[in-house]
Amino acid sequence: MKIIIIGLGNFGMSAAIALSNTNHEVIAVDMDMEKISQIKDKVAHAVAFDAKKEAAYNSLPLKNTDLVIIAIGDRNGTAIMSTAIIKKLTNAKIIARASSSIEDTILQAMGVDQIVHPEKDYAERFIKTINISGSIDSLEVDDDYLVSEIEVPKDVVGKTILESEFRKKHHLNIITIIRLKEHKTLLGKIEIKKEVLGMPKPSTVLQENDILVVFGKDKNIKSVLK
Amino acid sequence: MKIIIIGLGNFGMSAAIALSNTNHEVIAVDMDMEKISQIKDKVAHAVAFDAKKEAAYNSLPLKNTDLVIIAIGDRNGTAIMSTAIIKKLTNAKIIARASSSIEDTILQAMGVDQIVHPEKDYAERFIKTINISGSIDSLEVDDDYLVSEIEVPKDVVGKTILESEFRKKHHLNIITIIRLKEHKTLLGKIEIKKEVLGMPKPSTVLQENDILVVFGKDKNIKSVLK
Repeated sequence: MKIIIIGLGNFGMSAAIALSNTNHEVIAVDMDMEKISQIKDKVAHAVAFDAKKEAAYNSLPLKNTDLVIIAIGDRNGTAIMSTAIIKKLTNAKIIARASSSIEDTILQAMGVDQIVHPEKDYAERFIKTINISGSIDSLEVDDDYLVSEIEVPKDVVGKTILESEFRKKHHLNIITIIRLKEHKTLLGKIEIKKEVLGMPKPSTVLQENDILVVFGKDKNIKSVLK
Repeated sequence: MKIIIIGLGNFGMSAAIALSNTNHEVIAVDMDMEKISQIKDKVAHAVAFDAKKEAAYNSLPLKNTDLVIIAIGDRNGTAIMSTAIIKKLTNAKIIARASSSIEDTILQAMGVDQIVHPEKDYAERFIKTINISGSIDSLEVDDDYLVSEIEVPKDVVGKTILESEFRKKHHLNIITIIRLKEHKTLLGKIEIKKEVLGMPKPSTVLQENDILVVFGKDKNIKSVLK
């Protein structure tokens, strides 16, 4: 896809680099020249301009763009103004970042395709890993159910998944296992690498230091971690 | 737990409210009085002070705290200074937010327990949902494997999971199904609610508008969405 990203804070910068690395043609925009020089070799094109000034947008190929991400993070309404200008100039899909609940309301009224709240969404996800201590990362499916990465409980180490009776005892499904493996680099240095075992079999033996990716109810995940 | 959160930007504010709502005793700190009044009824205690001034920390019960989250988001090194002061005053677990790669390096050298990068981490996750169009949310297990929420493919609607041969055909496991159900409120209004079906059975019939939570390789998830 051809993607324009406006605003190169931590969110916009990371998004621009990740999208460029996955073979999208990315044009990155920010008013700060330092950020432009930081990113210019990592994306197709980088432009410095003030997103509040409509005339500046002439330098962008807005008509031939599939997606515009407005990643501006300040609270001065710049994201709103930039969104209004872009909506006028293109039919591309627009994803905008809201930095306050007022911005959120205005962006919704303007009918942008998607609104993101990076810090808030990250915070809510992150809090889940604090509340489920021993959980490494998780995906909330709803208020009750989640997919969670947990350290293997000591009492099942050495057993197969079948022997461990994990599902029956804990009411959790093991989706996969992440195993830490030593790996020799070309220079002979030992590195520890994560290896995902794919679809686990009933005969797979659980090992020390394994990370289990499990699905089930929040309370059952909490209780296995106690 | 007793938790102190310093810095009430979008990340700190959301974290403070989410932790307080899940029954932690939260003390929230920021130098902006407006933010303090915004949060004061939602947490155990809210204090306004300048995180760069060591004397101010006397007002915090640092000795009796389990966890300190330094959520300061500016790039002027305030997070570093605050972390140094807190490390001196308490043995509590410290989670700090890094806003640049230099901050990250310094925080690592200082030995904080966990470093978070809300915007960068969110961006990388978010980019996955752009790259896998039709994917709603996802948890990356490693570079190849992920758990992803996808719209049910048209050709399996009306079939049972067994009949659909989903695993054999697509090399993906269905972890669970999210079903949208109409639900009548007390006032007789119709609401659409998400319902998670728990561990699906081979006999479960896939319906239109279902969201499937699947586990498998990135490329197999992409191919089923085509």
